[in-house]
Amino acid sequence: MSLLEQAKWRYATKKFDASKKVDQKLVDQIVEAARLAPTSSGLQPFKVIVITNQELKNQLVPISMGQQQVADCSHLLVFAAWDNYTEERIDHIYGITTGAREQPVDRYKDYTDRLKSLYLARPHEENFAHTARQSYIAFAYAIAMAAELKVDTTPMEGFDNEAVDKLLNLSGQGLRSVTLLPLGYRDESNDWLVKMKKARHPQSEFVIEIK
Amino acid sequence: MSLLEQAKWRYATKKFDASKKVDQKLVDQIVEAARLAPTSSGLQPFKVIVITNQELKNQLVPISMGQQQVADCSHLLVFAAWDNYTEERIDHIYGITTGAREQPVDRYKDYTDRLKSLYLARPHEENFAHTARQSYIAFAYAIAMAAELKVDTTPMEGFDNEAVDKLLNLSGQGLRSVTLLPLGYRDESNDWLVKMKKARHPQSEFVIEIK
Repeated sequence: MSLLEQAKWRYATKKFDASKKVDQKLVDQIVEAARLAPTSSGLQPFKVIVITNQELKNQLVPISMGQQQVADCSHLLVFAAWDNYTEERIDHIYGITTGAREQPVDRYKDYTDRLKSLYLARPHEENFAHTARQSYIAFAYAIAMAAELKVDTTPMEGFDNEAVDKLLNLSGQGLRSVTLLPLGYRDESNDWLVKMKKARHPQSEFVIEIK
Repeated sequence: MSLLEQAKWRYATKKFDASKKVDQKLVDQIVEAARLAPTSSGLQPFKVIVITNQELKNQLVPISMGQQQVADCSHLLVFAAWDNYTEERIDHIYGITTGAREQPVDRYKDYTDRLKSLYLARPHEENFAHTARQSYIAFAYAIAMAAELKVDTTPMEGFDNEAVDKLLNLSGQGLRSVTLLPLGYRDESNDWLVKMKKARHPQSEFVIEIK
């Protein structure tokens, strides 16, 4: 099924059937899609936290604007971006790169030196804005992959980021939460959105052509 | 082909074959994937500019850090996000939504009132940070769709946003450039990256499981 068909099939699930669990093999593919997503300079400045612990999912509801999907879902993905760029983080991923490509360890030194001189001089909030943006690419890949596997998702930004960071001890890991992605299966008879038509700006408003 | 296979196939093309053009029907599908991508509250706060004008593409090279892909590509997509949320913009998309769903025009009034009280009170830079993030989801959908169609892309952030905004008169349209996506076909014999292995943090570093 084409990505276009998948994009039409998916919707922001409002009610999950809490009794249905997503097979771990499917979850692994969804996370793998996020892992393979492209990022700026290949830095991949985020992690994905996969939560199945029910008690923890329940604790997340009140700090997620009461949205029950974080508790009723089968697996909850948390996209958490690096709180800042550091020399170690940049060197680490480029070490992985030269290793994978069997290249000398200093193969990209000029490039990473330029990245460091740019990023390490910037305020951490500016760097976090950049790492968070990258995480959206992976977030989108995970949403699309789930749809391919007919797994329902609710892409979510509406939560108390600081409270989530605290609950999951993200700052202790140099991370900050950006988005949540509950995975599961829709409870069709109790989901008000499931039968609603998808609404988008028409192509005539969305696209500007310069020929 | 699964999104996973597509994600492995794609790479950030460093050299396009400028003689090869992408069929307009494929470009339309790539833009359509971006149009169907999910966004926060369904606001879809961005547009895609499709540039085929060669002179304009050439003018973009010096303000895109000299990256020749913006000139050599077949079609250049510019993802440009709303510079701010406005009452009109919010009402307009919800008018499209109630129209598509054949609902009373005030069906989502409580919801849009809450959005407006939140967004319209925030500094425009905070709102632009939010609209720009949404555009990354569509950017990712376009990248993935292109790969499905075996169209090469170079996801790009490294350019002079203000100069691009000025050249394309984006501020006059309430937009600001966020990312560029040249589309085309790789020049395999002149692209240093084409045969390099993809490098990513291993799953053991990328994923944190909480069971």
